[in-house]
Amino acid sequence: MKCRRCNREAQVYLKSYNISLCKECFLELFKRKVLSTINKFSMFSFKDKILVAVSGGKDSLCLWDVLVDLGFNTEGLHINLEIENHSSSLEEIAKKFASKNNLKLRVINIKDVLGVDIKKASRISKREPCRICGMVKRYVINKEAEYFDCVVTGHNLDDESSNLLGNILQWKKGYLGRQAPLLEEYGSLRKKAKPLCFISELEILYYVSLKNIDYFPYVCPLSKGASSLFYKNIINQIEYRMPGTKLRFYKGFIEDKEVYIKKESKLELIPCQRCGYLTVNKICNFCKLKEKVEASSK
Amino acid sequence: MKCRRCNREAQVYLKSYNISLCKECFLELFKRKVLSTINKFSMFSFKDKILVAVSGGKDSLCLWDVLVDLGFNTEGLHINLEIENHSSSLEEIAKKFASKNNLKLRVINIKDVLGVDIKKASRISKREPCRICGMVKRYVINKEAEYFDCVVTGHNLDDESSNLLGNILQWKKGYLGRQAPLLEEYGSLRKKAKPLCFISELEILYYVSLKNIDYFPYVCPLSKGASSLFYKNIINQIEYRMPGTKLRFYKGFIEDKEVYIKKESKLELIPCQRCGYLTVNKICNFCKLKEKVEASSK
Repeated sequence: MKCRRCNREAQVYLKSYNISLCKECFLELFKRKVLSTINKFSMFSFKDKILVAVSGGKDSLCLWDVLVDLGFNTEGLHINLEIENHSSSLEEIAKKFASKNNLKLRVINIKDVLGVDIKKASRISKREPCRICGMVKRYVINKEAEYFDCVVTGHNLDDESSNLLGNILQWKKGYLGRQAPLLEEYGSLRKKAKPLCFISELEILYYVSLKNIDYFPYVCPLSKGASSLFYKNIINQIEYRMPGTKLRFYKGFIEDKEVYIKKESKLELIPCQRCGYLTVNKICNFCKLKEKVEASSK
Repeated sequence: MKCRRCNREAQVYLKSYNISLCKECFLELFKRKVLSTINKFSMFSFKDKILVAVSGGKDSLCLWDVLVDLGFNTEGLHINLEIENHSSSLEEIAKKFASKNNLKLRVINIKDVLGVDIKKASRISKREPCRICGMVKRYVINKEAEYFDCVVTGHNLDDESSNLLGNILQWKKGYLGRQAPLLEEYGSLRKKAKPLCFISELEILYYVSLKNIDYFPYVCPLSKGASSLFYKNIINQIEYRMPGTKLRFYKGFIEDKEVYIKKESKLELIPCQRCGYLTVNKICNFCKLKEKVEASSK
């Protein structure tokens, strides 16, 4: 198969666009697509200081790599969640990427901020590990981002479209109102952006493999049975039958959001009485969890 | 297992409601649910003349049976689509149901209105059989309903929720705007209602089996590979994992529709220059098809 753009031997075939590309053209288009998403939603500029949340998985490393390549001013943040047979490798991979590319990476250990690991926190709070993990990461990232202009995460099209599907099936209006490529700064909540939101997992896999980026390929052992994985399986079945649906579905929603979802009245957020983080309750979820952790160790 | 209402031996278990019921309580609640849907959307009254579209499958026979039982003034309409090894049995079953219950049933043969059967019409028009079939049925039913106050069809919750899913995934705004339990009369287009729209296929299967209603149980051979079946399979996987989702998804959409879908400006419909049926084009799709059929036989 030949590259659609330059007629060289193709190395990549994207069914959802029905296009074959050679390595060089694919990587160039990939970068261009990320930049156009950044510009379209005015996510950040070349003057901004950007904090990249880096797990050590393909998405966040791909994101960091592209942003550096595009010339943005970045720093990485890795949170070690102390998940058995998992977190140490992730940290190592993130560190290797940073040192190889001469980039600055902060590492935070969950035990230092919460006192326990995710599994234990989940047991203590009697809530699913994925929920706890998401909440803790959002909290820590926001805190660490104090002196940055924007936080970016590696959420890709598969994440966003499957998440959207789940929110629509249950008509979670609050989540739907806030599902966007960019969340503007609000009080002490930092600006958050998802520059890969229109790029599929498959495209990211091609990217990291063509650029020889070493990443941690395993699924988190604590996510077994998570509904996010269930919805991803569903959206993949749909994509397989109707290539391009993921993108049309997510893009259609984002571009025409006001047509589908009336703007939710802005949530009334107040500072947490313990830490000052903006929250809907008196005490934020992170501080509540911390209270429980402290109580359980007494 | 005991009946939740009367404590007799249960015969029905509905996972989506997590409820067990005996035959009598199930049938009573079923009837009540249909009546409440009819009233909620002001579909029709006891004074109205109602035309029931009866295929001979479980949904339409169940609907007709309930409406008669509730005391509504109904007449049946069966369209024989001349599908091999299929249509003659369907017609026979519809006729048997009518004569057994002393009800009036009109029978229309597709060859009399179109000149050919569905398979041939699909071949001539180069369009999927399901599309042609739906279009022809809508046309014929509307024509036959001239002296009725309302047309009713047996569309159930599985049909409506899977259809909704398909329309949302592709953001078909026009279809979404018109997806409703009731379509009001508009010019020569008759009022159309779906009294079973909140009742699942499983509930209907229980109903026809408990009431010993003979129905044609096979799937149409021409529907093989149809996207409606694909979306039903998808929505069933979701329901299996999260019982009650079908109902929450469809009901949530219907009840809060204006929040999700801004009202589409009413389509400008004009009478077909051939038959007078309201359409968006000069010649309606049915007449266009008929022209093609006539041309092909010359």
